[in-house]
Amino acid sequence: MNLTDKLSKRYASKHMNGEKLPKQKVHNILEAIRLAPTSKGLQPFKVFVVESQDLKDKIFEIAAPGQPQVPKASELIIFACYKEITDDVLGAYYNLFRSSRPMISEEKATSYVYSIKNFITPDFAFEWAARQAYLALGFGLVAAAVEDVDSVPMEGFNPKALDELLNLEEQNLGSVCILTIGYRNEETDYNATLPKVRKDNQDLFIFL
Amino acid sequence: MNLTDKLSKRYASKHMNGEKLPKQKVHNILEAIRLAPTSKGLQPFKVFVVESQDLKDKIFEIAAPGQPQVPKASELIIFACYKEITDDVLGAYYNLFRSSRPMISEEKATSYVYSIKNFITPDFAFEWAARQAYLALGFGLVAAAVEDVDSVPMEGFNPKALDELLNLEEQNLGSVCILTIGYRNEETDYNATLPKVRKDNQDLFIFL
Repeated sequence: MNLTDKLSKRYASKHMNGEKLPKQKVHNILEAIRLAPTSKGLQPFKVFVVESQDLKDKIFEIAAPGQPQVPKASELIIFACYKEITDDVLGAYYNLFRSSRPMISEEKATSYVYSIKNFITPDFAFEWAARQAYLALGFGLVAAAVEDVDSVPMEGFNPKALDELLNLEEQNLGSVCILTIGYRNEETDYNATLPKVRKDNQDLFIFL
Repeated sequence: MNLTDKLSKRYASKHMNGEKLPKQKVHNILEAIRLAPTSKGLQPFKVFVVESQDLKDKIFEIAAPGQPQVPKASELIIFACYKEITDDVLGAYYNLFRSSRPMISEEKATSYVYSIKNFITPDFAFEWAARQAYLALGFGLVAAAVEDVDSVPMEGFNPKALDELLNLEEQNLGSVCILTIGYRNEETDYNATLPKVRKDNQDLFIFL
């Protein structure tokens, strides 16, 4: 597998065909998302994987009417971030950290986990979490390309409407982006043939 | 190549050995970053690739004293985002868009590119750009893992000090994250043997 080749072939597939993906491919994409590193290891988000056709249709209608891929996708993968880094969030992380790394002392684990409170101010918490979610979105997008699965990274939806539909607010969560995965509709997906728009190396990179 | 396997093996390699990476590996990692999709295709950032040992040492000293991998990395890849989406930024993107997709009419291209002004408010522009940079950081991290290159995604630096050192402010840029790449020091990199801390599937994913 040549990764550059896979990434050159991927594009935002706005017209999908409604086919379901094999379970193993979905699993591999989710596993990449789960393995993505995040600041301090907190993974400050939940990931909603929408498989139900009814719910895809509802999301299309209520929160993303301009996005034809939504009802025709195999899965919508919704990244919803913590609005606040609460004691519950940190407590759960502390327990996970301790059970994953029992060789680290209680004192060091406590200091590591709870230091998050010192460097993430409440007014920046959600944006900080959103950055981590985008990093994980990147992992999911690359994994989809590796699996020859079509994908669309989406910001073009109404987060307020989506949050209400999924009761996210009361779970201390807010939606930030969606990864749509499925198979392109070969006949109608005009994006498939358009050349990529990307900065040249000399416009993007500065070597020092 | 099994991507899950590659991603399971990667970790934040805080102790690197100072060896230079082969040019082709660096190229493939940068190419993944260049190919990462961004909202509206704008790629609202520049990427500084620090190869100079003097500059790595200076960055370590001035902006990231707690990060031992910085002077021992092969490259530091610094993501610096546009502070404002200026007319210059949009004009350059318009020209790139037109030359990449000459089949799209001038009218449609203008409407597509300049609509960015309508949905990204000035006070959100930098954060919006940071999210895109993190997505591209994700692409770079996965590419490094595929190349069996060690890496560290870094927030733990002083962005103000780094921006001053690189004169970013006057370029309408601000640093948001750094991707450190190189080879681990097998003898001192204690992170190499620590188990990963990641949420279980049932803690991270909600299937609907």
